[in-house]
Amino acid sequence: YDYDGPLMKTTVPGPRSQELTKQLGDIQNVGAVNFFCNYEDSRGNYLVDVDGNRMLDIYTQISSIPIGYNHPALLKLMTNPNNLSTFVNRPALGILPPENFPDKITESLLSIAPSGMTRVQTMACGSCSNENAFKSIFIWYRNKERGHNTPSEEELTSCMTNQAPGCPDLSILSFMGGFHGRTLGCLATTHSKVIHKLDMPSFDWPVAPFPRLKYPLEEFSQENAQEEARCLEEVEDLIVKWRQKGKPVAGIIIEPIQAEGGDNHASPDFFRNLRNISRKHGCAFHVDEIQTGGGCTGKFWAHEHWGMDDPAEIVSFSKKLLTGGYYQKEELQADKPYRIFNTWMGDPSKNLFLVEVLNVIRRENLLEEVTRSGKALLNGLYELQAQYPGLLSRARGLGTFCAIDVRDAATRDRLLLQARDKGMLLGGCGDQSIRFRPALVFKEYHVHIFLNIFNNVLAQN
Amino acid sequence: YDYDGPLMKTTVPGPRSQELTKQLGDIQNVGAVNFFCNYEDSRGNYLVDVDGNRMLDIYTQISSIPIGYNHPALLKLMTNPNNLSTFVNRPALGILPPENFPDKITESLLSIAPSGMTRVQTMACGSCSNENAFKSIFIWYRNKERGHNTPSEEELTSCMTNQAPGCPDLSILSFMGGFHGRTLGCLATTHSKVIHKLDMPSFDWPVAPFPRLKYPLEEFSQENAQEEARCLEEVEDLIVKWRQKGKPVAGIIIEPIQAEGGDNHASPDFFRNLRNISRKHGCAFHVDEIQTGGGCTGKFWAHEHWGMDDPAEIVSFSKKLLTGGYYQKEELQADKPYRIFNTWMGDPSKNLFLVEVLNVIRRENLLEEVTRSGKALLNGLYELQAQYPGLLSRARGLGTFCAIDVRDAATRDRLLLQARDKGMLLGGCGDQSIRFRPALVFKEYHVHIFLNIFNNVLAQN
Ligand code: FES
Repeated sequence: YDYDGPLMKTTVPGPRSQELTKQLGDIQNVGAVNFFCNYEDSRGNYLVDVDGNRMLDIYTQISSIPIGYNHPALLKLMTNPNNLSTFVNRPALGILPPENFPDKITESLLSIAPSGMTRVQTMACGSCSNENAFKSIFIWYRNKERGHNTPSEEELTSCMTNQAPGCPDLSILSFMGGFHGRTLGCLATTHSKVIHKLDMPSFDWPVAPFPRLKYPLEEFSQENAQEEARCLEEVEDLIVKWRQKGKPVAGIIIEPIQAEGGDNHASPDFFRNLRNISRKHGCAFHVDEIQTGGGCTGKFWAHEHWGMDDPAEIVSFSKKLLTGGYYQKEELQADKPYRIFNTWMGDPSKNLFLVEVLNVIRRENLLEEVTRSGKALLNGLYELQAQYPGLLSRARGLGTFCAIDVRDAATRDRLLLQARDKGMLLGGCGDQSIRFRPALVFKEYHVHIFLNIFNNVLAQN
Repeated sequence: YDYDGPLMKTTVPGPRSQELTKQLGDIQNVGAVNFFCNYEDSRGNYLVDVDGNRMLDIYTQISSIPIGYNHPALLKLMTNPNNLSTFVNRPALGILPPENFPDKITESLLSIAPSGMTRVQTMACGSCSNENAFKSIFIWYRNKERGHNTPSEEELTSCMTNQAPGCPDLSILSFMGGFHGRTLGCLATTHSKVIHKLDMPSFDWPVAPFPRLKYPLEEFSQENAQEEARCLEEVEDLIVKWRQKGKPVAGIIIEPIQAEGGDNHASPDFFRNLRNISRKHGCAFHVDEIQTGGGCTGKFWAHEHWGMDDPAEIVSFSKKLLTGGYYQKEELQADKPYRIFNTWMGDPSKNLFLVEVLNVIRRENLLEEVTRSGKALLNGLYELQAQYPGLLSRARGLGTFCAIDVRDAATRDRLLLQARDKGMLLGGCGDQSIRFRPALVFKEYHVHIFLNIFNNVLAQN
């Protein structure tokens, strides 16, 4: 059901997209709009725009389309009359769940639960997933501190006006370059771009350095190990310092690969050591798999590459999983109802789609495909950076979750636009990186279509 | 398409609900689960559970079902093949909107825009609506303070580690008893129940008293005016005090009727005066219509009852509007792209439903129906409280957005369960109130069904 290649009719954005952007500009800030899409005509790996341009999509709606556009399995689900009421009647899941909810969750989210985790809480997006995961961590941490879960009278009254001890000065440790969302709680752990943070009140929470490694990792293992050790030491220092400040670190949040921040990798060893530090200091370890989860690294969760039985206390997800949410260890489960709660608590119509997505991933062995395409992509990037050493460097990746650095931001931005006009939709990340975020149905031959066209673009620069 | 009355087969939760609750309990905290539902068989004002009980639903999924269950207009929309791709391909709206997005927004959200507001930003739930509204307010306020929108070098660097001046100590003033969501930013303005706030780090933001009025309002206008004046004075004091503390109030957030906090009303005069205070002190006025919006007060927005041309800088919505979001005045629009941004920025499939909901509201004159049913409901409540003065008091309401107080919390909770076993699904709010949150298709004869049964329940107590 895929098209056989890109097909360009205009430069992008074409005249119709420009017209619509102008129209929308009367209603919203449209500074971020790339172009308008024809989602009906989009298929598989190809996104079609309103001017009839058909582009190979290697960005997939900021990494959120799992199995391509208009996948027949998802369209079929829509035509099943038994599913209609799930779309039409959105329940308040926390109080009045539909009959099939436990089964659907078991069939979908629990079937891919990270090692050691038996409990999952659905949410509606990445931000509420992380915000509520933080809240679970704070509840757990305070109950540990108290030794019981009966708050004092002073806690009960002070919390109503945002004051300690009811609203304690707890913190979440995060990493420079990390991205965990943009609501104010999440934003206090996000440190990827100024534009996200400027002018926003925040919490005084510790920010550790994330290792800045040399690629390919195998070639620089000793230097990289030193850099990682430096960062780990800093993490411990910060935990101690913030405890002394009276703002103890209740949890550590980290991405298995820093995505928005520029596709920064670290070794499995780094994460195993960090996990141990979190244990040693009694902080919850929260792995944010919102962008890395769902199969794009060749395993369903990126943290599986660390090879651990007990990888974390909490793993959050969204994007390619279509629903947001987080897994947690039994002990992190909030002690009382209504502490982790909101009106919708997710959306069962997204769970319906997720069941089908997982079926397709299994039926079509998509994790193996991703591993295969990812190898071809990374090798292709290695060749291109050898061929254009003044332009490209630091090719890196796991599965198809790849990136490469460009000489500078301006050149990167120009390359992205030139590639787009030739039918390749790519995204940037960090200061000067290009990130690859294809769907799981991106095959080896798509890699070759990309490499050919990208080579042409580079040759012009 | 409605049923003709409740029909009860078991007490609630029945055996099947209990079984499913047990099953779900292995995966999640189920302390808040009331019972499991059969959404296929639910229709109009009636919610059917998995044990075949059919209840008149006066709570509607925490006030989030606008025109009843399985409304034919919404089901029809699902069978239109042109709509399928909107459900199957969720776009990153901020960068790659679908072709019909400007038209759909104009046809739906803009057609009901509050007075003076031409711009609307969709979001996915009430919390991200308020969080992003706060962010718009902070950007606007800081640019006013600066006199331009070019941040200093120090701001650019300090914001990356959550420190001032880049992350300034700005505050949002909120009201005791208010509810604006549960992500950490929203939660700092929420003050309705301990269980929401306890153990959560928060911001030192000012909390003003909300008027505690006597009902019926007409009978106590003088005392109530005094109480409102007291609260307004306190608001001004807090604004001055927080400015002196170095945490200036950038915005004031308020619900037109405090919903979760116990259905607390204030007079149009109170809100007009508060609006003036916000203008005088240069704070943005943010009206949270997440629960009050959508027609349940007899006008589309509750703030329309204030009769103002320029009611606010920002009005946020969610729940019955199916999509989240907020309207804003032109000057509140963020100055640069990507400052107000996330992966999905709403969900076009919810906009599709909203267009139909608005059509139904207009076609069936539902705002008039609400006014009519609301009058019958409030009069009925007045009669009941006259009849049971030891049990009931403080009946109040606007449209069908009504509430009544019960002697104490334990009696309130018992009444709710007894009513449920007789086929009336109601919700509590505040410490001892019962709230009425029917759909807009709740007609006068539904009011009478309710009053009859509720009378029977009261007679037993
Ligand atoms: S915060 Fe996640 S959907 Fe609103």
